[in-house]
Amino acid sequence: MPTSFASAQLALDLVGVFVFALSGGLVAVKKRFDLFGVLVLACAAALGGGIVRDLLIGDIPPVGISDWRLLTAAALGGLVTFLFHPGVERITRFVRVLDAAGLGAFAVAGSLKAVTTPGVSPVAAVLVGVITAVGGGVVRDVLAGQVPEVLRRELYAVPAMLGSVVVVVAAQLGSLQDWVLWTAAGVVFALRMLAVHLHLNAPTPLRSNPT
Amino acid sequence: MPTSFASAQLALDLVGVFVFALSGGLVAVKKRFDLFGVLVLACAAALGGGIVRDLLIGDIPPVGISDWRLLTAAALGGLVTFLFHPGVERITRFVRVLDAAGLGAFAVAGSLKAVTTPGVSPVAAVLVGVITAVGGGVVRDVLAGQVPEVLRRELYAVPAMLGSVVVVVAAQLGSLQDWVLWTAAGVVFALRMLAVHLHLNAPTPLRSNPT
Amino acid sequence: MPTSFASAQLALDLVGVFVFALSGGLVAVKKRFDLFGVLVLACAAALGGGIVRDLLIGDIPPVGISDWRLLTAAALGGLVTFLFHPGVERITRFVRVLDAAGLGAFAVAGSLKAVTTPGVSPVAAVLVGVITAVGGGVVRDVLAGQVPEVLRRELYAVPAMLGSVVVVVAAQLGSLQDWVLWTAAGVVFALRMLAVHLHLNAPTPLRSNPT
Repeated sequence: MPTSFASAQLALDLVGVFVFALSGGLVAVKKRFDLFGVLVLACAAALGGGIVRDLLIGDIPPVGISDWRLLTAAALGGLVTFLFHPGVERITRFVRVLDAAGLGAFAVAGSLKAVTTPGVSPVAAVLVGVITAVGGGVVRDVLAGQVPEVLRRELYAVPAMLGSVVVVVAAQLGSLQDWVLWTAAGVVFALRMLAVHLHLNAPTPLRSNPT
Repeated sequence: MPTSFASAQLALDLVGVFVFALSGGLVAVKKRFDLFGVLVLACAAALGGGIVRDLLIGDIPPVGISDWRLLTAAALGGLVTFLFHPGVERITRFVRVLDAAGLGAFAVAGSLKAVTTPGVSPVAAVLVGVITAVGGGVVRDVLAGQVPEVLRRELYAVPAMLGSVVVVVAAQLGSLQDWVLWTAAGVVFALRMLAVHLHLNAPTPLRSNPT
Repeated sequence: MPTSFASAQLALDLVGVFVFALSGGLVAVKKRFDLFGVLVLACAAALGGGIVRDLLIGDIPPVGISDWRLLTAAALGGLVTFLFHPGVERITRFVRVLDAAGLGAFAVAGSLKAVTTPGVSPVAAVLVGVITAVGGGVVRDVLAGQVPEVLRRELYAVPAMLGSVVVVVAAQLGSLQDWVLWTAAGVVFALRMLAVHLHLNAPTPLRSNPT
C-alpha cells in the first residue's frame, strides 16, 4: 500500500475498532456479563472483522492481534463502556449509532486494504470490505446469543457495500485521496442512520397466502 | 491441480454453492428475514464451507470471495429463494434435499482440492472434505440461531466422510476420473437421503439409568 | 522452533486436545446428541482453538487437521465420553475441571508456538495464547447453543492470559525450559479451579440505579 494511505488506514481502523468495542461492550453490559466478559466481547466485536479480513487477504499475523494500538483501543472501548455505560434503557439506540459509525469506518478500511493488496480482484475487494464491516457485529451477536443485526430488519449490509464500491471504483480511477475515503465512510454512516431513523426496511418475502 | 480436474472442480463448486444458497435462503425465508438478510444468509451458507476450506489449505484469497461465478451463483440462489419460495409448510423437507445435494458436491469438491494441494496429507484431505461439506450449513444454522443440523439426529457427517474417503483413495490410486467424482457425490447424496427417509439415526448416549 | 520444545509442544497439545474433547463430548451428551454429533462436538472443542491459532500465525495446514495424533486424541476423547460418561447429574462439575486443564495446556501450547514463530510480536503471542485456550470452548458453546463460558461469571480468560504472559516473558529471558511450561500450565489450572470453587467473580457493571 502506498505510504500516503497508511495514515488513513490506521485512523479508519482505530475509529472502527473503538466504536465497535463500545458497541460490543454495551451488548455485554446489557446481558450483565462481568468485567472480563465485557472486555472479551468488546475485543471480539472490535477486532473480529479486521482479523477475518486479514485472514482472507493473507496478511498474517492479522493486525488485530499484532498491532498494540488496535488492541489498546479495543480494550479501552470495553473499559469505558464498563465504567461509564449510560442507563440500560438508553443503550439500544446508542448501540445502533456506534454500529453505524463502525460500519462506515470498517467498510472503507477493509475495501481499501483489500484493493491495495496484490492479487485481490475488485469484486473480492468489495466483498472483503463488507465482511470487514459486518464481521465484528456478527461475532458480537453470535457470542451474545442473538440473531446478527445484519440479518434483521433495516438495511444494514447495503450501505457497507455501497461504501466499498466507492473505494474500489476510486482505486480503479487512481484517485484514492483521503477525502474520498472519509466521504465514503460518512456516506455509509448517513445511509445506515437514515435507514434506522426512517425504519427503512428491505422487502420481506411474500407469504404463500398474500394479503 | 491437473487441468483435467479443473472443470469438475468448478462444476462441483457451482452445484454446491447454488443448492446451499437455496438452503440458506429457505432458512432465512422461514425466519422472515428481509431481502438482504436472505441474500446474506444464502451467501454465508453457500460460500462458508469453501472459504474455510481455502483458509485451511492456504489458497488465499479464497475462491468463494474472488471468483465472481461462485458469488453470482450464491446471490442468484438467494434471489430465487426470495422470489419463488414455496409455501412455508413445504420448506423443511425441501431444505433437507438441497442440503443433501450440497453435502455431496462439497464433500467431493473439498477433498478433491485438498488432495491435489501439495503438503496436505490424505487424512487432512478427508477432514477438509468433511469441513467443506458441513461448514456452510453450520454457519447458516449458527447465524439463524438454531443448533447445527450436523449435531442433530440423522446421520449427516458420515456420508460426507465416506465420499471424501472415496476421493482420497482414488487420488492415491491415481484414478481421479470425472465419473469417480460424480459417483462419489451421488453416493453421499443417496446415503444422506436414505438416512433422512428411513429416519436412520446414529446411536445416542445411554442414560445413567438405562431402560 | 528449537527441537527441544517440540516434545513439550506436542505433549501440551495432546493433553489439551484430549481434555477439551472430553469437555465437548460431555456437553454433547448432556444435549442428547447422537454418536456422530458427540464426535463432531468433541473434535470442534478439541481442535478449534489450535486451528484458529495456526490460521493466525500462518502455519498452514493447521496441525489440528494434518496431525493424525491430535485427530485421534480428539476422536478418542469423544468416543470415551460417549461410552463411559458418568451420570448426567455429575456432568456439569466435571466439564469445568476438564475445561480448566485444557485451558492451561492450550494457553501454554498456544503462546509457546506463537512466541517461537518468526514475525509474531510478544503482545500478539499472548493474545494468540488466550485465543488458543478459549477458542475451542467458544466453538463448543456456540455450536451447542449456549452463551460461551468465557463471557459468563467466573474468571476465565484471565488465568489463560497470565499463563501466556509467563511463557512469553520466559521466552524473552531465554529460559523456556520444560518445567517452566508445565508450571505455567499448572498455574492456569489452579487459578481457574480456585475461581470456580471460591465463586470468584470479576466485577459486574454498576446498575444505573445503584443499591
